[in-house]
Amino acid sequence: MILDIAVDLDYEMPEPTDLILQIEAAFLPDQQVWNPGISMNATEHFNRIEGEDGIGERIMLRTTGNYSCSYRARVEINRTEQAIEPLEFVPIHQLPSDAVRYLMPSRYCPSDQMQSFVAAEFGDSMGGERIAAMRDWINTRYQYVPGSSGPQTTAIDTFIQRQGVCRDFAHVLIALARASAIPARFVSVYAPYVDPQDFHAVVEVYLGGSWHLIDATGMARANQIVRIGVGQDAAEVPFLSSFGPAFLQTQTVNVNVVG
Amino acid sequence: MILDIAVDLDYEMPEPTDLILQIEAAFLPDQQVWNPGISMNATEHFNRIEGEDGIGERIMLRTTGNYSCSYRARVEINRTEQAIEPLEFVPIHQLPSDAVRYLMPSRYCPSDQMQSFVAAEFGDSMGGERIAAMRDWINTRYQYVPGSSGPQTTAIDTFIQRQGVCRDFAHVLIALARASAIPARFVSVYAPYVDPQDFHAVVEVYLGGSWHLIDATGMARANQIVRIGVGQDAAEVPFLSSFGPAFLQTQTVNVNVVG
Amino acid sequence: MILDIAVDLDYEMPEPTDLILQIEAAFLPDQQVWNPGISMNATEHFNRIEGEDGIGERIMLRTTGNYSCSYRARVEINRTEQAIEPLEFVPIHQLPSDAVRYLMPSRYCPSDQMQSFVAAEFGDSMGGERIAAMRDWINTRYQYVPGSSGPQTTAIDTFIQRQGVCRDFAHVLIALARASAIPARFVSVYAPYVDPQDFHAVVEVYLGGSWHLIDATGMARANQIVRIGVGQDAAEVPFLSSFGPAFLQTQTVNVNVVG
Amino acid sequence: MILDIAVDLDYEMPEPTDLILQIEAAFLPDQQVWNPGISMNATEHFNRIEGEDGIGERIMLRTTGNYSCSYRARVEINRTEQAIEPLEFVPIHQLPSDAVRYLMPSRYCPSDQMQSFVAAEFGDSMGGERIAAMRDWINTRYQYVPGSSGPQTTAIDTFIQRQGVCRDFAHVLIALARASAIPARFVSVYAPYVDPQDFHAVVEVYLGGSWHLIDATGMARANQIVRIGVGQDAAEVPFLSSFGPAFLQTQTVNVNVVG
Repeated sequence: MILDIAVDLDYEMPEPTDLILQIEAAFLPDQQVWNPGISMNATEHFNRIEGEDGIGERIMLRTTGNYSCSYRARVEINRTEQAIEPLEFVPIHQLPSDAVRYLMPSRYCPSDQMQSFVAAEFGDSMGGERIAAMRDWINTRYQYVPGSSGPQTTAIDTFIQRQGVCRDFAHVLIALARASAIPARFVSVYAPYVDPQDFHAVVEVYLGGSWHLIDATGMARANQIVRIGVGQDAAEVPFLSSFGPAFLQTQTVNVNVVG
Repeated sequence: MILDIAVDLDYEMPEPTDLILQIEAAFLPDQQVWNPGISMNATEHFNRIEGEDGIGERIMLRTTGNYSCSYRARVEINRTEQAIEPLEFVPIHQLPSDAVRYLMPSRYCPSDQMQSFVAAEFGDSMGGERIAAMRDWINTRYQYVPGSSGPQTTAIDTFIQRQGVCRDFAHVLIALARASAIPARFVSVYAPYVDPQDFHAVVEVYLGGSWHLIDATGMARANQIVRIGVGQDAAEVPFLSSFGPAFLQTQTVNVNVVG
Repeated sequence: MILDIAVDLDYEMPEPTDLILQIEAAFLPDQQVWNPGISMNATEHFNRIEGEDGIGERIMLRTTGNYSCSYRARVEINRTEQAIEPLEFVPIHQLPSDAVRYLMPSRYCPSDQMQSFVAAEFGDSMGGERIAAMRDWINTRYQYVPGSSGPQTTAIDTFIQRQGVCRDFAHVLIALARASAIPARFVSVYAPYVDPQDFHAVVEVYLGGSWHLIDATGMARANQIVRIGVGQDAAEVPFLSSFGPAFLQTQTVNVNVVG
Repeated sequence: MILDIAVDLDYEMPEPTDLILQIEAAFLPDQQVWNPGISMNATEHFNRIEGEDGIGERIMLRTTGNYSCSYRARVEINRTEQAIEPLEFVPIHQLPSDAVRYLMPSRYCPSDQMQSFVAAEFGDSMGGERIAAMRDWINTRYQYVPGSSGPQTTAIDTFIQRQGVCRDFAHVLIALARASAIPARFVSVYAPYVDPQDFHAVVEVYLGGSWHLIDATGMARANQIVRIGVGQDAAEVPFLSSFGPAFLQTQTVNVNVVG
């Protein structure tokens, strides 16, 4: 699949502010980025550093005041979709070092509180089958309701309320997976067919010796997903972090299928 | 300073359980570990992997049932103590890649909620002076009360209640630092003079181009601290994580000054 | 002061739903209500019951589907404004029975967590002076930011973030008062000069043998306030409670000074 | 059933402190209290006021320092046990005024967040059948684990963790009932067979025109329960509220069947 991505952000910032921005499609073997372009006004400083686990880049910058930014790219995705069910659980003593932190509870995914629920509800399956069961459990019980959650909403809030947006669905699946000793990370992505159009969020679980994409909302299939970056949860890979007051004026995300 | 460390853990585990253990003094240039020894009963599997940021090691294991573990080591600390006040703020566009995640809100340190407070209370100082002011603010207002907090207690709870134990004090200092765009990480340590004796927790802030130890409780000075590991907060570097029911029977930590 | 009040609510409700509505100016000696009128579409059942502490009325109803409601009234306020500072603390053994529950922690006002802060920050004043100090403390440190809080925001969130809307300001003042053993209740009101115009919320504290109005936002003075109802916090006296899905379409509140 | 109740409390209080105590068996038609006696040391002031809904009494007092209290009573319970299933739902427009506040979310029972869950899980039953289904749902899924919860634990924490003590079980049942528009209140009680012996907590739901006792833990039957007081949740009817530092030294509760 080939996608055209167009993002425009506009923020009011009363004073010079430090920002961390991560909105560019990552350069990865399974997604080829053509003609990427990013432009922004009014930055005092600007630097790029590697994203978590070497996926994508963070842009570290300091604004001189109000901030606007445009990003354009065409991305070709060449990713074989794979059934999740047959993938095998990796015992924790065989995990690679960089997967271990994705077992730990995090800001939005307090997985330690969900062990009893997971044991009771999903105790009779393992590995990929368990993850598929969790995905289906979320899908059949939760409603996708734009506006129903906010920046403080955790996987626990969503678990109780049974509604949320993509990042909330992702947080619940991550928390459930980690409570099963399956490493799970948050993936900030672009995808078509997200309604209303916006940044999207999915999950990667570590099974059978590698990471595998799953969309807990069921909106996107693995070969329709453009990865931006990964992290423990939305707190570690936000598209924008601000270290001072920042008021959103407009934000548009367009992802169009062109091939 | 030379310290003798002796730790004994005993847990009741009704069934075979995956554990992550991180209790050994890290091998680091500024702390030399002599005659370390760790022994434990009843493990099905066992593996060592590097800790976060390459500091210390995690032991990944699977018990066959109840679990007990003993750790002994002598550690010589050769660390020059340094005043925190003169250290300079590093603008975020000059931060090294691996410091950036320590700017982000985490499970126990939701720093994004504390920006207004930090701007109002500490807005007139920068870098090391600000961190020193935060440390003193905590020290003069908070009470160290064993038993006053639990595994779910966040920096916000402690900020409100103004009491806690070492990990709570550390979480507040970390949250305040990150709200100032100063990277801060949680350090799991051993130290003498902790009363009652237990695992201890301090903070490292990234200032002037490197990490610097601070004990928000005022109990330990930099040259009295033996580092075990680091992480975003206590959730990433617990001394023990269990992926199944585990009931503490006894836990003793002894840290004695021998030179 | 004489005020004209006009409220229009419009909700989409996919199915018949039980509602509790409390939006009418209460009939009280210090506020005279002229020509009140309330009309609504589509109710299956309808009943009026007394509000908390006999102030105002709740309308209990069941919709047949979408719900809209209009309320109009003219209210003349005859209330002597009184300085809060000279009012005396009432020891808890002298409190009347119906004031006691306003000492207890509630949904949005977990006052039990704020005793240490209150003792440290306000320990050198008593009664009305302490309440005035709390009101001023909030006023000089918190920002009124429409949209900065949501239905789950507690006094603790607001205390940390130092911003919110009227109900958040009220919740913090209530929590601080109760942590001082001063009964405090939430008052749902109309007031002019609220910007943007909306339902408003203030506080009543029990001092010197009776209840006294205070607006923690500083927007309204006692003789500008039309009381609708009282409760432990916003959870007990919401203008609308719905026991089923209800989606706000439009809501307008107009309060105009006519004399 | 006839029960002998013996309670002894001993608290260290560094300074004179206001307390609210509610530990005495209420005088009610269905439980006759013989030879009640309460004695305590060191009170500066002392007053009795009616409990919530006229059930039981609160003692308001001020200590002169450390506080100890003994309570003894014999209580004969004459209550007909009644099946919960046949009881009918009372539409909210037919509720009596004093039942309405028990529909509202409270400190430990944020019922507003549980409407989706309740609709999905219990949507096919009504009234008493629904309450019975909720009680059974809790009973078969939750574990009674002394020490697993604390003073901040809400119905949401318990719902997630699926373990707790009597007050946690009660809070979950209350939250689920209110999310169904069924008034539910917390009842502080004595009961035999509570293991370990302690104050106990159960629920009353308003169905079929009156309040009905249910023990969500399954430990006590209606004719084995001695009511102390009622409230929205444990925050409104604690056995002891302290408006200053209070450190528990010893607390013993003995409830023995004598007839």
